[in-house]
Amino acid sequence: MTSRIHVRYLVRGDAKSIAARAEGIAVEQSVEMPVEPIGNPFVIDQIIGRVEDIHDQGNGLFDVRIGLATITTGLEAGQLLNMIIGNTSMQDDVTLADAEFPAEVADAFGGPRHGLAGLRERLRAPVRALTATALKPQGSSAAFLAKLAGDIALGGIDYIKDDHGIANQFYSPYAERVPAIAEAVARGAARTGVPTRYLPSLNGNLDAMRGQIGLARSCGLDCVLIAPLIAGLAQFQTLVTENPDFAFMTHPTMSGTARIRPSFLLGKLFRMLGSDATVFANYGGRFGYTAEECGLLSRFALQDWPGIKPCVPVPAGGMLLERIPEMLNFFGTDVMLLIGGSLLSTRERIAAETARYVEAVRAAAKG
Amino acid sequence: MTSRIHVRYLVRGDAKSIAARAEGIAVEQSVEMPVEPIGNPFVIDQIIGRVEDIHDQGNGLFDVRIGLATITTGLEAGQLLNMIIGNTSMQDDVTLADAEFPAEVADAFGGPRHGLAGLRERLRAPVRALTATALKPQGSSAAFLAKLAGDIALGGIDYIKDDHGIANQFYSPYAERVPAIAEAVARGAARTGVPTRYLPSLNGNLDAMRGQIGLARSCGLDCVLIAPLIAGLAQFQTLVTENPDFAFMTHPTMSGTARIRPSFLLGKLFRMLGSDATVFANYGGRFGYTAEECGLLSRFALQDWPGIKPCVPVPAGGMLLERIPEMLNFFGTDVMLLIGGSLLSTRERIAAETARYVEAVRAAAKG
Repeated sequence: MTSRIHVRYLVRGDAKSIAARAEGIAVEQSVEMPVEPIGNPFVIDQIIGRVEDIHDQGNGLFDVRIGLATITTGLEAGQLLNMIIGNTSMQDDVTLADAEFPAEVADAFGGPRHGLAGLRERLRAPVRALTATALKPQGSSAAFLAKLAGDIALGGIDYIKDDHGIANQFYSPYAERVPAIAEAVARGAARTGVPTRYLPSLNGNLDAMRGQIGLARSCGLDCVLIAPLIAGLAQFQTLVTENPDFAFMTHPTMSGTARIRPSFLLGKLFRMLGSDATVFANYGGRFGYTAEECGLLSRFALQDWPGIKPCVPVPAGGMLLERIPEMLNFFGTDVMLLIGGSLLSTRERIAAETARYVEAVRAAAKG
Repeated sequence: MTSRIHVRYLVRGDAKSIAARAEGIAVEQSVEMPVEPIGNPFVIDQIIGRVEDIHDQGNGLFDVRIGLATITTGLEAGQLLNMIIGNTSMQDDVTLADAEFPAEVADAFGGPRHGLAGLRERLRAPVRALTATALKPQGSSAAFLAKLAGDIALGGIDYIKDDHGIANQFYSPYAERVPAIAEAVARGAARTGVPTRYLPSLNGNLDAMRGQIGLARSCGLDCVLIAPLIAGLAQFQTLVTENPDFAFMTHPTMSGTARIRPSFLLGKLFRMLGSDATVFANYGGRFGYTAEECGLLSRFALQDWPGIKPCVPVPAGGMLLERIPEMLNFFGTDVMLLIGGSLLSTRERIAAETARYVEAVRAAAKG
């Protein structure tokens, strides 16, 4: 008997038609054809999706739980996404809300290779919240970005990542930018004693990304930024498996908000596929996530999961230094704060502003 | 001076705030930081997105045109998607409606390698609509699918594709399934004289997909099915470039409907990246697209585009034989009809039903 992935969909509908609609989703996400002419008992018993529960949430919304056969995923990351939401993403009465994965699925993907504890250990920061910022704007030269990164490193920050729009453009090609920034950050780290990490942003196809990780490693780096929904989940999962010495921070670009709840996609699915630190749009910033969604995302990223390490939640998107106490109060200290644009706006004072940011986080840990 | 991609967003808002909101999108999709502290004139002049036009459509909807610098895409497929919608996909007041690409972008990707004329030539069908169906259900053995494909081929259909849920599961692994189906279809084609094509569905990472195309080629096949939003656009574009002898049919799974208009994504963007035939959810089926959207998608796929061949529109998703006259009336004959589940429901009569389907399309071409 195959195990089942128990997928929860939030469906807009009415009490009269919801049972048929739920069956429709179960069929769409499995055999995708009328059930009646299927004669094969294996397909009928083991492959067709099963409606397991329908719960009326009120206001015309129903929580529908469907059991999808694990074997239909082939335990492959892209096909997993295809089976839990692929075609149904085109039906706008449905949102993928959550899924419970059986142990064989979690075991096949393995989750973060480093996770919260691994990242803390690298930064020698066993308790406090971690700090991060982003290098911007794209269009800057490699030399400019390296100077900027070096200045930020002097402030004693934990993580400096490329902006997710910085790819391999001629004005700062990866092969020129990454060695320059890595060296500048290493110089800054040598002065502060904080083992600040730089995360270059991967781009292009799988071949290109492999080459980029190789170059990063040769520059002494041990972590990268990847956008799984642009890379393709299969590429992300392959790179995690091939590079166990690297930590992967994931970026939410292209994650939408309408068809898949961010808490599930960024907090649970990315974690299972190997995200060590998951960036998401914090509430109260310039994106539309609610505080409830962000809290749930953080819980999904951190909660106990046999065999799967905790992934660090990274709230971001228009964050300000002034919000540090509030964010630490909301998320606790198992978090990496990512403050980008507002820090960069301080220009020549950036090392001092970064130090103020870092100090605020450290002080909160003591207080 | 860099060329600009002119991107049209449909934005929900009000007349008082729309100008600021449009600026916000232009910044989000380029430098992604406050503009004021940016001192580099190159970034200010050439990189920051520019609001080019705002048109009040009424009902609280605004058509906003933004010029994004081509150079920020690095002419790489994944980064192109990242720049035109990536982060903004998380802001639910915005839909990417359309984009005009400058010639250098279209030239860099090159569009379909075969397109409408190439597919027609292979099928020796210079005028009439093309016919297609899908092999289902997943969970079936390779032998069952081969028998089914052989029976369908006896009906003289043009294209038989794997269902997009058929990947590399143990019950019909690619390496076993594809040679068996290819042989069965070739046998059927030899009897009918119709050069029926089989399109296996690619899955996994780039390495796996390369191997799958290699195996398909060794079986005498010359076309495949790919889901670009699961594979990652970079993988899709790489495979198109590496395999000019192959035609690529694209599947819309994971395309959502909320953040990107299907007409643009499936009709224009997939075409530019190399789709020879683009499957989409037809109006009046089980998905939510309107007739207007499907008509626009078809026009985008086929319209004149210097250097870019026309891509065949493939309406699908719950289509019935009874709708053939209506669909041909709506789409004309530059179309490939894809009728899946309803054909499969005829079971042992499938060769005869396929012949009836094919005859209806041929008859329409004569009438």
